[in-house]
Amino acid sequence: MRRTITGFSNPTVKYLRSLREKKHRRREGKFLAEGLRLLTDARESGRLPEMLVMAQGRERHDLLDALVAAVDAAGGEVVETDPDILGKITGKDNPQAVAGMFGEWDTSLGALQCEGADLWLVAQALRDPGNLGTMLRTGDAVGAAGLILIDDCADPFSVEAVRASMGAIFTQQLAQAGWEEFLPWLRAGAGQLVAASLRDAVPYRGAPYAAPCFVLVGNESRGLPEEYELACDLRVTIPMLGRADSLNAAVAGAVLAYEVRATLGG
Amino acid sequence: MRRTITGFSNPTVKYLRSLREKKHRRREGKFLAEGLRLLTDARESGRLPEMLVMAQGRERHDLLDALVAAVDAAGGEVVETDPDILGKITGKDNPQAVAGMFGEWDTSLGALQCEGADLWLVAQALRDPGNLGTMLRTGDAVGAAGLILIDDCADPFSVEAVRASMGAIFTQQLAQAGWEEFLPWLRAGAGQLVAASLRDAVPYRGAPYAAPCFVLVGNESRGLPEEYELACDLRVTIPMLGRADSLNAAVAGAVLAYEVRATLGG
Repeated sequence: MRRTITGFSNPTVKYLRSLREKKHRRREGKFLAEGLRLLTDARESGRLPEMLVMAQGRERHDLLDALVAAVDAAGGEVVETDPDILGKITGKDNPQAVAGMFGEWDTSLGALQCEGADLWLVAQALRDPGNLGTMLRTGDAVGAAGLILIDDCADPFSVEAVRASMGAIFTQQLAQAGWEEFLPWLRAGAGQLVAASLRDAVPYRGAPYAAPCFVLVGNESRGLPEEYELACDLRVTIPMLGRADSLNAAVAGAVLAYEVRATLGG
Repeated sequence: MRRTITGFSNPTVKYLRSLREKKHRRREGKFLAEGLRLLTDARESGRLPEMLVMAQGRERHDLLDALVAAVDAAGGEVVETDPDILGKITGKDNPQAVAGMFGEWDTSLGALQCEGADLWLVAQALRDPGNLGTMLRTGDAVGAAGLILIDDCADPFSVEAVRASMGAIFTQQLAQAGWEEFLPWLRAGAGQLVAASLRDAVPYRGAPYAAPCFVLVGNESRGLPEEYELACDLRVTIPMLGRADSLNAAVAGAVLAYEVRATLGG
């Protein structure tokens, strides 16, 4: 279905703008993703926006044509508006911008597809949406099956997290759960839980990683609670050769995950 | 020297607030750093603020006492103000906040201390101050001597970069230069220039890294110019096992730098 929207006070414009805020996303179960490349990643991963928004008179592009055709075929809406209104929705002054509104999906642990997965990233109380998106992006690159968010993390469907994921929000599996739900779920299977730690830990290089390996990273300022560290099957240390006692959370996860990947092969 | 400041229109308040903008930092050669831990890192690394700002009636703290004593002894200013005004300076609503105004230092290549350094991080056209600060933080952890910024990078003295560095802005060496200046400087010594690349590259694990090793990371969206890659002594590939063709720049630098560290030892 095609529509043209004019006027900032149009309810659709207001609705889309409202999805920049977490409380509205929660209530509506919808989120925004921006950029032709990201939306193409989504399409190629089988995720289509329920609504696609672009500026009237935008330059043609093969990938955009493919996107419009796919949204049309799936019964979604294609909305054209003027560049100023588009800018209000995307928060950017770019008349070439394309935005999509997606329905959020099931992020329960039970919905994860674990078969064949040898590596997962797990983040606990990760507060920065940029770090969260970066972990999704790293997970894609390192061949992880997905990201599991433990306790009170940033919203993976926020504009910042989606942007930093560079499309991996659509390709990585994603779950959200409390620790008290995660640990029994993990223990019901064969997963090895690994954390970077200073407690009773072995060097991260050459540690006995085993698939399926779950790489656990803690909160940006507090790290992991002691109880969580103690519940891990393997605690490893990454050398800290300077004054600081920790790496950025997304960086620590990446250094560790690439080491695990090298051990597991693939 | 001690001073108490009341009133938002006080020229010192205006001056300090202005340092949140790059053009004012450039003109004045001053920058802001915030947080007792960060300022303590600075002090212990031999960098003292020219002016220290805190709220009147702030809780005592041994590290704060040490900082005040050091600033006093060095002839700097200690300014007390009310929490609202402090919030205007730091941009945060935290009456326990402490801010320091520092003089920028010489960031020319000629000022770098290269003796004994076996690892450097180099970033080209890195635009995100958070990535820049994260690279400084990683450099500290991985035992790098410092960070060299090539071409038009984000400002390392911005509030965001200083914050993301978690104090490493004070402990890592820092230089800023154009490529046309950097390359002859490098070639005048024995440095090995290494980049992650897809061109004529070898696997990053087990590659023949040699000290002093310079790990080069490119711009967030464009990567490195071809000419720069071709000028490298060693091009390595980090496995990209998913859909994406790149890692976050700070993440790529960290994965590579930790691999170099493992090869070089130390």
